[in-house]
Amino acid sequence: MKTSIATVSISGDFAEKLAAIADAGFDGIEIFEQDFISFDFSPSDVSKMVRDHGLEIMLFQPFRDFEGLPEGPLRHRSFSRAERKFELMNQLGTDLMLVCSSVHPQSLGGIDRCAQDFAELGDIAKAFGVRVGYEALAWGRQIHDHRDAWEVVRRADHGSIGLILDSFHTLSRGIDPESIRRIPGDKIFFVQLADAPMIEMDLLFWSRHFRNMPGEGDLDLPAFMKAVIATDYKGPISLEIFNDQFRRGNAPMVAKDGHRSLISLMDSVRRDLGENAGGASAGLPRLPAKARISDVAFIEFATRPEGKDGFEALFRQLGFRLTGHHKTKAVSRWQQGGLNLLVDTEPTGYAAEAVFEHGTTVTDIAFVVDDAAAAHARALALGADNFVQAVAKGEVEIPTIKGVGHSVIRLLDAGMDIWRTDFAEADGGADDPPALLSHIDHIAQTMGYDEMLSWALFYTTIFDTLKSPLFDVVDPDGLIKSQVITMEDRRLHLTLNGSDAPYTRASRFVSSVRGPAVQHIAIATDDIFALGERLRDQKFEILAQTQNYYDDVLARFDLDLDFLNKIKGLNILYDEDESGRYLQLFSRTIDNGLFFEFVQRESGYAGFGAPNAPFRLAAQRRASEKTPIPAAG
Amino acid sequence: MKTSIATVSISGDFAEKLAAIADAGFDGIEIFEQDFISFDFSPSDVSKMVRDHGLEIMLFQPFRDFEGLPEGPLRHRSFSRAERKFELMNQLGTDLMLVCSSVHPQSLGGIDRCAQDFAELGDIAKAFGVRVGYEALAWGRQIHDHRDAWEVVRRADHGSIGLILDSFHTLSRGIDPESIRRIPGDKIFFVQLADAPMIEMDLLFWSRHFRNMPGEGDLDLPAFMKAVIATDYKGPISLEIFNDQFRRGNAPMVAKDGHRSLISLMDSVRRDLGENAGGASAGLPRLPAKARISDVAFIEFATRPEGKDGFEALFRQLGFRLTGHHKTKAVSRWQQGGLNLLVDTEPTGYAAEAVFEHGTTVTDIAFVVDDAAAAHARALALGADNFVQAVAKGEVEIPTIKGVGHSVIRLLDAGMDIWRTDFAEADGGADDPPALLSHIDHIAQTMGYDEMLSWALFYTTIFDTLKSPLFDVVDPDGLIKSQVITMEDRRLHLTLNGSDAPYTRASRFVSSVRGPAVQHIAIATDDIFALGERLRDQKFEILAQTQNYYDDVLARFDLDLDFLNKIKGLNILYDEDESGRYLQLFSRTIDNGLFFEFVQRESGYAGFGAPNAPFRLAAQRRASEKTPIPAAG
Repeated sequence: MKTSIATVSISGDFAEKLAAIADAGFDGIEIFEQDFISFDFSPSDVSKMVRDHGLEIMLFQPFRDFEGLPEGPLRHRSFSRAERKFELMNQLGTDLMLVCSSVHPQSLGGIDRCAQDFAELGDIAKAFGVRVGYEALAWGRQIHDHRDAWEVVRRADHGSIGLILDSFHTLSRGIDPESIRRIPGDKIFFVQLADAPMIEMDLLFWSRHFRNMPGEGDLDLPAFMKAVIATDYKGPISLEIFNDQFRRGNAPMVAKDGHRSLISLMDSVRRDLGENAGGASAGLPRLPAKARISDVAFIEFATRPEGKDGFEALFRQLGFRLTGHHKTKAVSRWQQGGLNLLVDTEPTGYAAEAVFEHGTTVTDIAFVVDDAAAAHARALALGADNFVQAVAKGEVEIPTIKGVGHSVIRLLDAGMDIWRTDFAEADGGADDPPALLSHIDHIAQTMGYDEMLSWALFYTTIFDTLKSPLFDVVDPDGLIKSQVITMEDRRLHLTLNGSDAPYTRASRFVSSVRGPAVQHIAIATDDIFALGERLRDQKFEILAQTQNYYDDVLARFDLDLDFLNKIKGLNILYDEDESGRYLQLFSRTIDNGLFFEFVQRESGYAGFGAPNAPFRLAAQRRASEKTPIPAAG
Repeated sequence: MKTSIATVSISGDFAEKLAAIADAGFDGIEIFEQDFISFDFSPSDVSKMVRDHGLEIMLFQPFRDFEGLPEGPLRHRSFSRAERKFELMNQLGTDLMLVCSSVHPQSLGGIDRCAQDFAELGDIAKAFGVRVGYEALAWGRQIHDHRDAWEVVRRADHGSIGLILDSFHTLSRGIDPESIRRIPGDKIFFVQLADAPMIEMDLLFWSRHFRNMPGEGDLDLPAFMKAVIATDYKGPISLEIFNDQFRRGNAPMVAKDGHRSLISLMDSVRRDLGENAGGASAGLPRLPAKARISDVAFIEFATRPEGKDGFEALFRQLGFRLTGHHKTKAVSRWQQGGLNLLVDTEPTGYAAEAVFEHGTTVTDIAFVVDDAAAAHARALALGADNFVQAVAKGEVEIPTIKGVGHSVIRLLDAGMDIWRTDFAEADGGADDPPALLSHIDHIAQTMGYDEMLSWALFYTTIFDTLKSPLFDVVDPDGLIKSQVITMEDRRLHLTLNGSDAPYTRASRFVSSVRGPAVQHIAIATDDIFALGERLRDQKFEILAQTQNYYDDVLARFDLDLDFLNKIKGLNILYDEDESGRYLQLFSRTIDNGLFFEFVQRESGYAGFGAPNAPFRLAAQRRASEKTPIPAAG
């Protein structure tokens, strides 16, 4: 299988697009004509440039409003326009043109008329040594269904005329992709893929602004690809994505995401079909399966050496005990039951760089997976960046990839005991408080809105996870978009938050820490009241909620007044779903924006307290007018 | 008529919202409950705060999922929740609650069941001295049409129960607003207004993200308001706008736009209905009619004193002649036929401030209007900022308002001869070239995307103009949105451009000149070939186009090769529509981003060369890699 991407999918001029596409690992491009016309290189120089990047031009597109015109000057013009473009294709060194179904107001339509037009065009194309693929636009004037486009191609009955399929045009109209199985694979000249979020809207508007990479949206691309493979189609699989975000985005990131999405899609299709499916799935790289995360082994925070005591005092307030010191680095281990938090104050190295860049920040998230080496191999095959660090003799080498911002993701086998190999025991002190915190419930990462699709794709393609729909959270200064990635066992969640409004809490955090980073960690407790009381006694600063909030909770839920006073007294937020209750408690923000949340989920409550989020954000906005807790605090 | 706005419509915390709303001139607010709950003032303090701002709380909203529930705990809970909110309303000092039609999955519906619920609720409301208005949400589960909501209210037959109308909910579903005329005005308790752009999409998604101010969208709000007035409704007219841009926007700007939109809407409705329409239109301020712009009297550029010679050399290259000097200021007049460009190099004052802020920039746009004093009065009544400047004895005082960024808009009567009163003649030199430029075709202002709606509203409410739909222009670094405001005589146009992509030509311009400003001026010519040759001979730097562009033009249009070579030789861009041809020529950019365009419209070509815009932008991007022409030439 060869991979390709339309140049329209990413930002920049033609040269920048090419470089990004080649670096991302694609085999070829669809040259979007406008990108070529805007560029001041001759066709033959463009051709050479593409080859110099190790790429080929797999498709010239789009040629619009060709077929179905009445006899006369319009139709004549349409054919002579095509001839000029065939000449250009010869100069560019590409042999396939995309004709998309006409939206011309004077197009008469009629399957036979269109077939006749293509048969004639086929003769001309043949003379130029090129081929033409016909694609049904979802909003085409007469032809807007690949089944009708196929009938046109079938009746044109010309070796130089074939069909082009695009997942968006088929799936956006709800056309059953199974109907593709009836088409002979050798008459399918090209296959384009695009996904899209499921929002009902005008097809053209949806297509022009909301398409995204396979796996980033809600369309059933695996079903589409399986049908394509069943035809024995062996040509390229290509991305044609129109998306406002991608057009303005970082071209290398978008190209890399595109390649990752294709490889991951084809891998999952191959898994479903079995090894001998053939067609476009032949010759696919064999990837290890998606990695299953069973636990968080540790989370590592980096802070300035002078901030260490204050930061560790916070951990002590939370009931953590100092139980280890790294043998060769300034890293201490704080433990509470199965939870491990590390504090890194190394004066040099990547943690120190992260602190220099971001202030106190999460540098490492360590996941326990079934097979760390396999997970690492899958991640690298999907374009994740490897992270290598020198380790001292006797220490464990942990397979690691780069994560959001300045952080890394460590991949540990379940049996791996780094505490024994890398850490020396510390005397945690005599008064060992009972463990009130049990496990990590969710890790919230905040980033630019434009990076959210990219990181969701990262987590969902490398790991065995489920993805919730994007939802809006109301901040006093704009909307924050939030998305939840849930581990297959539904115990751990990763939340991604981003906002294109410049002054929301999310955007202020990203600008305050100069980049995307973990903004908060939510830790589960089985006794939020005991925890709340401990925190109050320890003078741990809790985010204060309003009386108005509790009055509203009382109006909304069937709670007794004692219970209400109890949660109010501890600034606990409350929510319910059909299954159970959810209780939440937030710390004040630490240093430049990091904070902790403590949650108690009862009887399978599945959400994240979304109705409370606006009140939490408003409370944080009020609190931000006060001084944040300094890390040295 | 009293004006009101829902607090959800703008950004900030409750105190910031109130301040912006009061400053904009509203009489009252709809208190959006979430804004109140997020705020840490008690209900009575909030009540006092609202009154201290000279406002009243006209509506408490929203109360959701009240009606149609089955007998039992759910229904009971719904009533007791309402009671708690009535208590709160008493504390807040507001007597009207909005109940929006239920989307509760267990709501049974049924007009009589709902009517019975409201009759019961009416008794409770009455005991609390409050009233309840029922509104049909466009996506309500059973009730999603104001005619059905009215039937519920009619059958509830309770003095404390009435109807609430919202233009979005009625017009978004295509419900004929004429049906409102059948409802007795005293049973309409409240009227909410929102507009929206006409994009077909899921109603809830459309409502939550795309609503905008009356006149900013495409819904027929005048028809809706006329029907409301026909009922003799005398209550407030209130804005309830959910819009992603407004939520993150500048609260004072959004509030001011809202007030402007209401006043302008009611003014145009009153004009259509005549003086004695009554109802909500009674007591409306009488505004002068929208001002008709017949010409551009002059455009004034400010530049640094040391840049003067270079900038004026450009004007000379364009065929302008120095014909006057301002009597008391360092302002020179450059003339070509009926066109007047002024160059201001005053070392102090507002022009100097503009230069200090933006570099070489347009500071004044002077429109000739039918009645300058009336136009000025209308603008001020609609919240435009007056601009007053000391003038010397004998000089004309020109009514002026502030415009985009650091610019002002001067309003001149047709007969006003400022050249005689304010200017002394200059010797323009002997060689008077023939005038090739005839008039201003369009003035393009570039701004943040979030300001575009605001300035479109400004121009369309103050002046007699038509507005085109927003369209996308493809820049190599993202999309630029563009909107055309056309004068009633279709001779002069104002184009507004903005982009939320940070690196487009539009965004780079706004950041380079540190704010919104005129980015280019398009001047009409009747002989673009003579002009092109003159510019070439004068070594005026023209923006170069690509060979690929001309090859494409040849493929697309029926042009002879001589003509093609002629336009190519002069870097003229070409377009056609059904009526005629359009020829365009662009200057290189001057100083920090300003440029000129020269256009020849033939046989009523109505567009702006939109198909060429991506190529122009790409050419500007390439040229920007070279040094821009310094103003000092």
